[in-house]
Amino acid sequence: MADIKVAILGFGTVGEGVYRTIHSHEEELTAVLGKKVEVAAVLIKNKQKQRNISENILITTDFEEILSLPQLDVVVEAIVGKEPTFTFLKKAISKGCHIITANKEMFAHHGKELLELAKKNNVSVGFEATVAGGIPIIQTIRQLLKINQVRQIQGILNGTSNFILTEMREKKHSFAAALVQAQENGYAEADPTNDVEGFDAFYKTMILSKIAFGIEPNWEEVEREGITSISIDHIEAAEKLGLRFKHIASLNREGSHLVGSVKPALVTKSHPFYHVEGVDNAVCVQTDIVGRISLQGPGAGMFPTASAVIEDLVYVVQNQHSNLKLYHADNDHDLQKIDDAKELWFVHGLKENMINSQITWIDQITEEAIIIQATKQELEQLAAKHESIRFFSILGDYETKNKNKAEALAAL
Amino acid sequence: MADIKVAILGFGTVGEGVYRTIHSHEEELTAVLGKKVEVAAVLIKNKQKQRNISENILITTDFEEILSLPQLDVVVEAIVGKEPTFTFLKKAISKGCHIITANKEMFAHHGKELLELAKKNNVSVGFEATVAGGIPIIQTIRQLLKINQVRQIQGILNGTSNFILTEMREKKHSFAAALVQAQENGYAEADPTNDVEGFDAFYKTMILSKIAFGIEPNWEEVEREGITSISIDHIEAAEKLGLRFKHIASLNREGSHLVGSVKPALVTKSHPFYHVEGVDNAVCVQTDIVGRISLQGPGAGMFPTASAVIEDLVYVVQNQHSNLKLYHADNDHDLQKIDDAKELWFVHGLKENMINSQITWIDQITEEAIIIQATKQELEQLAAKHESIRFFSILGDYETKNKNKAEALAAL
Repeated sequence: MADIKVAILGFGTVGEGVYRTIHSHEEELTAVLGKKVEVAAVLIKNKQKQRNISENILITTDFEEILSLPQLDVVVEAIVGKEPTFTFLKKAISKGCHIITANKEMFAHHGKELLELAKKNNVSVGFEATVAGGIPIIQTIRQLLKINQVRQIQGILNGTSNFILTEMREKKHSFAAALVQAQENGYAEADPTNDVEGFDAFYKTMILSKIAFGIEPNWEEVEREGITSISIDHIEAAEKLGLRFKHIASLNREGSHLVGSVKPALVTKSHPFYHVEGVDNAVCVQTDIVGRISLQGPGAGMFPTASAVIEDLVYVVQNQHSNLKLYHADNDHDLQKIDDAKELWFVHGLKENMINSQITWIDQITEEAIIIQATKQELEQLAAKHESIRFFSILGDYETKNKNKAEALAAL
Repeated sequence: MADIKVAILGFGTVGEGVYRTIHSHEEELTAVLGKKVEVAAVLIKNKQKQRNISENILITTDFEEILSLPQLDVVVEAIVGKEPTFTFLKKAISKGCHIITANKEMFAHHGKELLELAKKNNVSVGFEATVAGGIPIIQTIRQLLKINQVRQIQGILNGTSNFILTEMREKKHSFAAALVQAQENGYAEADPTNDVEGFDAFYKTMILSKIAFGIEPNWEEVEREGITSISIDHIEAAEKLGLRFKHIASLNREGSHLVGSVKPALVTKSHPFYHVEGVDNAVCVQTDIVGRISLQGPGAGMFPTASAVIEDLVYVVQNQHSNLKLYHADNDHDLQKIDDAKELWFVHGLKENMINSQITWIDQITEEAIIIQATKQELEQLAAKHESIRFFSILGDYETKNKNKAEALAAL
């Protein structure tokens, strides 16, 4: 009974979490797989750094050394960035190794190629850890999707942004102060661009899209906005109406298009995301038969992400001879384009004289913060004329608090 | 390419939902399974009742007629009660049919026997629809459980009870009025005992227990209490402290025991169940590696439940030659018994002079509604002495509102 030999590429939070979990759960892994799982090698960047790795494990900065091991069954990749990881994984697959990745940027760009190459080489690719850390969202969607058709997906996919928004609201901190707190807690990198500008959530959204719809929206057409422009003023005005800012990834079938966006929006108390706080992630899937299902859990962190990798490890080893049906067929071609619908928007910086006949006043919070009903197009035209305007869509059922502007302002 | 022939036992909400979904999703089923799924027979109780079933389908009150069909691949059971369904399903398995059930009472009692019989006959058993309707909780736990060990499960598993509690709180209706509303909406049966006394949730909890822990608590030791004793007074007093009543199924590892209960409890705003309203179900799973994951969605209804059955249908047909590992091994034997921990309790009917030194005052809502800290044993001793006392545990992080009794009563 030969062992299963694993190489871990990268020994940051995720890599170390995987390493430690393989050791702490050695017995469970052996029981499930009928074989011992052994970490054979770890790829690192800096040889000088002190690490807590057993002496009998190959520790190297050279991936070729790992590839030339006499036995290597699974390569777990927990590095950041597209290259050289993509190249490493292609080589690993060609050598007959299963691969598991936690790298959303690389997988969003090259997932398709890796899956095709893996199929040719009769090995499997695990990527549960690329989206929403420990929440088994990819398996859940796959499970649901045998027959259900997904209509919409919404997600809070970046724990750092959600933590910052929670801090700002609860402690009345500025964005900058909340970011520092996130960095001190180890949630945000020294360069937080990927998180707070929405790139991280964008990559995860594209991976979800492929799984749920079989296709991705055109990347250039996906609105991507981070949370850096949200001020305490916006947050406090929204809170007066029982609304909360969340950074929301969204995928909607609209006519023959799949429309994606990753941007701040407001949710009402009835929306499942209203109480998703701190570094938690959540995903809401709307399908044709079941209706709406939501999942919530830790979106990042050493052990939640390691858990996703380890569950993938079992999956790829057990399914090594089956052809995983990863993406279902594209069946969106026959959908018809529908007209833009009127939606609810929270608008900041909108003055009385800017409102035109296409826009319906719904509620008022302060002189400048107002809830309106309009199509996105109408609002975009207005925002093009008046640069001071910031607008956010409202998700969930909104109950009007004030019947008219006078009443609203009197209530302040 | 032979079709897959299905018999549906029972044509109530679930049976009809399955029938309609097989027809509305014929194309998807054929695409996934490579074979057409055909309803060959429907077992009914009353021949006189008008039903919308195609003429070429065998409609019968005699199960033997269904069993003697020349081809029968899958039997979907959507009847209520333990018998004659258990007998029907044993016969179906012995004849080599896969079975899928939505019947929690029958499956909680006889699941083990059916699974063993199915294994012998090399067929599969689907039972996702027995717990939490459309939420794929059984598959999710199985997925998580390859390596993760479950520590605790909490669930809102009965949509009718949750609907009644929501109505009582939102509309200040009495239990009786809310129950009538539930019946008018089609959520509650004419005899609502199974739902409001917690039997339905109990059966579902036992099924979850087997999946998550490999064992069940001793049925006699599981506290089972419905929602009939919750009054508007309790609900209003709790709401003053930001607490909500939910009917909660709970499974906890405590020492060498698995402790189960199905009863009303209070949740704080930080608990994922706080915003689970109406007929929704939710399940929270706490495991050793991932931490806490929660799922929420429609727990009942024609199509959510039908969806669970149809996804099972695909599952059993695709996995017909594999040995499903349904329950993981019992590995609780070496756990040590731990002492009862101090917990937070919402107590109604507790008077000043009843409080003894073992009990810590935490917060006060009215003269009689009070939050205390105590072990369950201490509280049970107190309740044995004073019959007027009703107590409920509090789940989630509770923030004290009032520093002392005087302040609390002054704030009323």
